[in-house]
Amino acid sequence: MKVALDAMGGDHAPAVNIGGAIDALRYYPKLQHLYLVGIEDVLREECKRQGLDLNDPRVSIVHAPEVIGMAEPGAKTVRKKKHSSISIAMDMVKEGKADAFVSAGNTGGAVAAATLKLRTLPGVDRAGIASALPNEYGICHILDAGANPEAKPEHLVVYAVMGTAFARGVLGVKDPKVGLMSNGEEDEKGTAFTKEAFKLLKQAPGINFVGNVEGRDLFESELDVVLCDGFVGNIMLKSIEATAKAV
Amino acid sequence: MKVALDAMGGDHAPAVNIGGAIDALRYYPKLQHLYLVGIEDVLREECKRQGLDLNDPRVSIVHAPEVIGMAEPGAKTVRKKKHSSISIAMDMVKEGKADAFVSAGNTGGAVAAATLKLRTLPGVDRAGIASALPNEYGICHILDAGANPEAKPEHLVVYAVMGTAFARGVLGVKDPKVGLMSNGEEDEKGTAFTKEAFKLLKQAPGINFVGNVEGRDLFESELDVVLCDGFVGNIMLKSIEATAKAV
Repeated sequence: MKVALDAMGGDHAPAVNIGGAIDALRYYPKLQHLYLVGIEDVLREECKRQGLDLNDPRVSIVHAPEVIGMAEPGAKTVRKKKHSSISIAMDMVKEGKADAFVSAGNTGGAVAAATLKLRTLPGVDRAGIASALPNEYGICHILDAGANPEAKPEHLVVYAVMGTAFARGVLGVKDPKVGLMSNGEEDEKGTAFTKEAFKLLKQAPGINFVGNVEGRDLFESELDVVLCDGFVGNIMLKSIEATAKAV
Repeated sequence: MKVALDAMGGDHAPAVNIGGAIDALRYYPKLQHLYLVGIEDVLREECKRQGLDLNDPRVSIVHAPEVIGMAEPGAKTVRKKKHSSISIAMDMVKEGKADAFVSAGNTGGAVAAATLKLRTLPGVDRAGIASALPNEYGICHILDAGANPEAKPEHLVVYAVMGTAFARGVLGVKDPKVGLMSNGEEDEKGTAFTKEAFKLLKQAPGINFVGNVEGRDLFESELDVVLCDGFVGNIMLKSIEATAKAV
């Protein structure tokens, strides 16, 4: 597998990106090639500093003169900065030069670039971000964790299908359980939005919908996918991170 | 101050309620009288078991033959069970026999009973639940933590006013800071709902609105009130509790 890495994206770029590249090359022999996409001079300097040997045939730098900052509006900036590391790395996936794209950078930018350049799968209207929460049973994904803040109920059904496919195909879960995040476990709990989503999920074929779930189910239940709109998912994820840090 | 305690409400009632009553009588000399509201026989037995002396002039049992279970739909059940501990305790506040009502029971039932019997303040359309999160600066209240899941933007403005009054009057904070929970701190982040609330809060007099906040601000910022609709607040609160437990 060939991977295009946004080497300039993130709060601590490019140091942590190059550090991650070194680890990936060391621990994943299946990684055939790693493209470090970003400002060439900066990346050469950082590779030298951290001891990443650019004569290694598995690694190369792809110059991208622009960077999308963490505070910039992602979707807008992707359209403006055609030569950003996110844009150029995503183009490599589009053109088949890379099989996958990895970024720790501007989330909105990455989602917008993926949607614009790679398009969504047939039947998928909106991209979603799956964020992994480890628990004692394995991994539960919050979906959507922020790509689509004003989701429609039918978007959640498509997330359920994609989350199920990911849990089954990538994580090897036989019959992934999908829950709907709500303000109570009873069927009648929720807002007009979640009630409509609940109805659609009940009828959707090919998914194992277990009904409404609550915060505690993220950690205490055997659950593979928790569905929510991107606004709730983003707030939930950040609150969980902040609580873990505070505790 | 005279307090009416819902002695039957909660997952571990009446044992923890009577345990709490014993502590309250011991540590709060300003507590003039504590009414234990619930099924008389059950409460007598529990008081005896835990050594709460019913000859103490500061405590008495008020018989309420019905109980609203934790899994019952709160608002509906309050209307049906006229003689529940929640209803009868709330009546005591209405009639001036008690100054305050305390319950660890069915949240929807308590909110519905308060709204039906005591009514909201002038100008307040909807009740809100303020849930206290301690942090290094003091206490930050999530408001609303679940009373009003489908809030309108203008409800959040009223919550801002009430939260400010509480922080100022009860907690002694001089100029309470009020934030709006969103999926990013930038002014333009959020949904149609939060953007409208943001606009109204910017214009509202008498509150110190600091703009959009995120999960980390709950613990890492000097912030007194975090506004959100009851759906988001409920999910956020339960996720925080679950994370703290898991960590």
